[in-house]
Amino acid sequence: MQHHEVDIDPFVAGDTDRLTAGEVLSGYLHARAGDFLRGLRMYGESGSDTAAAEAAARTLRGAARRIGGGLHTYRPLLDPAWADQLRTELGWLSGTLAQEHACTSRLHRLLGALARLSGATAASAAPVSRSEDRPEGAPPGTLTVGASRAGALLDRQLTLARTRAHSAALQALGSSRFHAVADAVAVLASEVPLGPLAAAPAVEVMAEPGELTARQLLDAVAALPLARAAHPYNAEALVHGLATASEGEAQDAPWHQVRQLLRLHRYGQEVWCAGGAPDPMLLGAGQALDRHRDAAEAAAAAANAARTPRIAPATAYALGVLHADQRLEVEAARFAFQQVWQQMPMAASAP
Amino acid sequence: MQHHEVDIDPFVAGDTDRLTAGEVLSGYLHARAGDFLRGLRMYGESGSDTAAAEAAARTLRGAARRIGGGLHTYRPLLDPAWADQLRTELGWLSGTLAQEHACTSRLHRLLGALARLSGATAASAAPVSRSEDRPEGAPPGTLTVGASRAGALLDRQLTLARTRAHSAALQALGSSRFHAVADAVAVLASEVPLGPLAAAPAVEVMAEPGELTARQLLDAVAALPLARAAHPYNAEALVHGLATASEGEAQDAPWHQVRQLLRLHRYGQEVWCAGGAPDPMLLGAGQALDRHRDAAEAAAAAANAARTPRIAPATAYALGVLHADQRLEVEAARFAFQQVWQQMPMAASAP
Repeated sequence: MQHHEVDIDPFVAGDTDRLTAGEVLSGYLHARAGDFLRGLRMYGESGSDTAAAEAAARTLRGAARRIGGGLHTYRPLLDPAWADQLRTELGWLSGTLAQEHACTSRLHRLLGALARLSGATAASAAPVSRSEDRPEGAPPGTLTVGASRAGALLDRQLTLARTRAHSAALQALGSSRFHAVADAVAVLASEVPLGPLAAAPAVEVMAEPGELTARQLLDAVAALPLARAAHPYNAEALVHGLATASEGEAQDAPWHQVRQLLRLHRYGQEVWCAGGAPDPMLLGAGQALDRHRDAAEAAAAAANAARTPRIAPATAYALGVLHADQRLEVEAARFAFQQVWQQMPMAASAP
Repeated sequence: MQHHEVDIDPFVAGDTDRLTAGEVLSGYLHARAGDFLRGLRMYGESGSDTAAAEAAARTLRGAARRIGGGLHTYRPLLDPAWADQLRTELGWLSGTLAQEHACTSRLHRLLGALARLSGATAASAAPVSRSEDRPEGAPPGTLTVGASRAGALLDRQLTLARTRAHSAALQALGSSRFHAVADAVAVLASEVPLGPLAAAPAVEVMAEPGELTARQLLDAVAALPLARAAHPYNAEALVHGLATASEGEAQDAPWHQVRQLLRLHRYGQEVWCAGGAPDPMLLGAGQALDRHRDAAEAAAAAANAARTPRIAPATAYALGVLHADQRLEVEAARFAFQQVWQQMPMAASAP
């Protein structure tokens, strides 16, 4: 077992070569565990300040995901049973904490889309941005009855879901399960249970685990229908627009998997190249897939709202347009991912 | 007044230089008038053969549009009062005859889209063509209740519209107004009322009228938001997806106008370069705008069907998805037009 102070950063350029793998990995995990504990403290101090609580939850989630990513990628350097167990618990925690924010941003996305779909009247020839900026003098578009009813319905449903997610998060944060995670992370802030391989020089043993994640990512990307995504307006994302929900989900799943592998790969790079700026292409590709996920879930929420009993036909019609609009966003996100990916150096080494 | 036999083609290469403008224009109009009369004869002989009647109507419409185009572009070479009057009547006729076919193809387009939106289940990763071909072994997608009800509703409404259009076309073909047009075209098959300028050599006076149409086309294209159309997934065509119908129509109008000017320009070239193969780029650009018009009208038909009283929410939802899908086709057609247009030699001479 090795020990590093959280605030000591051993990753200054040139030094990394002399460090053991355990020192590099511990340094990263110490720092992220410190972020986690800071997020926890912020959350405790946020009281009724919603914005502060959201920022705290974001810090907690980001730290939990990064620790989990480090444990996943560099498992061969760690006590594997411990790593697997903590990773599972961190996944549960970040998943639980993510729900409330997801409901909020999904509602914003859908209400924004309804406003956009209701259009500005006098500015049809001018570029229409997705923001609410309107050319001076152009009257704002008024929502049709269907659009405003659809908005009210989504507001009710997603606010209810958010309230439930909030309660679930509060309950999770008060649970003994959470306290066990927090204790484990507190230990991690000073001490990482390393395996025997961690004593080897970082330059010798840290490349391979990172490459494994990269290979998994490349394989997953190779399985995507990228050639199709490269062709704009391929109408692929809407192909199950009127079929059952499970068919749409089956189509999205490989993209969601690439999103997660891409994030794991990015976190793995953070360990290895600590302090370096994140690769903007990796970030861009990840953002496209975040948008893909958000749009897919918003489209599902619109379809789900349309199944509410006794809604007016005008409401259902607006929800149908909204669903299709968000599926179009899904397709646009795939196009954007493809555009970024084809320029990535790592794409050239694809199998 | 000059006279040409319908079956004499004076436009063999090298000869055109020695012809007067009147000879060139008369030759073209004689030939198209011959087509018109042939279509009329075919129609009379078609009896209860629907396919033959459709082919006859297509021939009639094509000839009427081309004669009208020639009268429009080369008006300075003709008796202007006669040209304007016949052109108006030909416009009425081809518009009336076009309705039945438009209803049929709109219904096919919408039912095809509903089938596509209901998707094939096992083949989500494979390219999905808009045709009904499915990979072997993949079960065909079954329509959801909403999709099949929407299909039945559209079928009823568009079949009714087609029946009305058919009656209107029959009525038009039996009217004294039509007989006057047919008589005028029969005269045109042998004799064209030329103006004084038509006596000048074709090479001297036929370029300018053609250039005027080309200039109008370039001006109209310059007014289109092409920079926006060049950016895939700009979400422009759906921007009025939930607004009033008139707002969507206002957005489409400049594109419809370019479609008509492009056709006029193409017909003008047919007169001048008779016998030459049509410019494939002009044809491609025109096809993109035909698709734009068809998709815009199909989207409007879906929105219109959704306003039917007492429909089920599931039907309305499916119509909303369908409307958005067709508006996406509108956007895709603009993208396609832009792609073709930027490669056209005439685009380089735009103002």
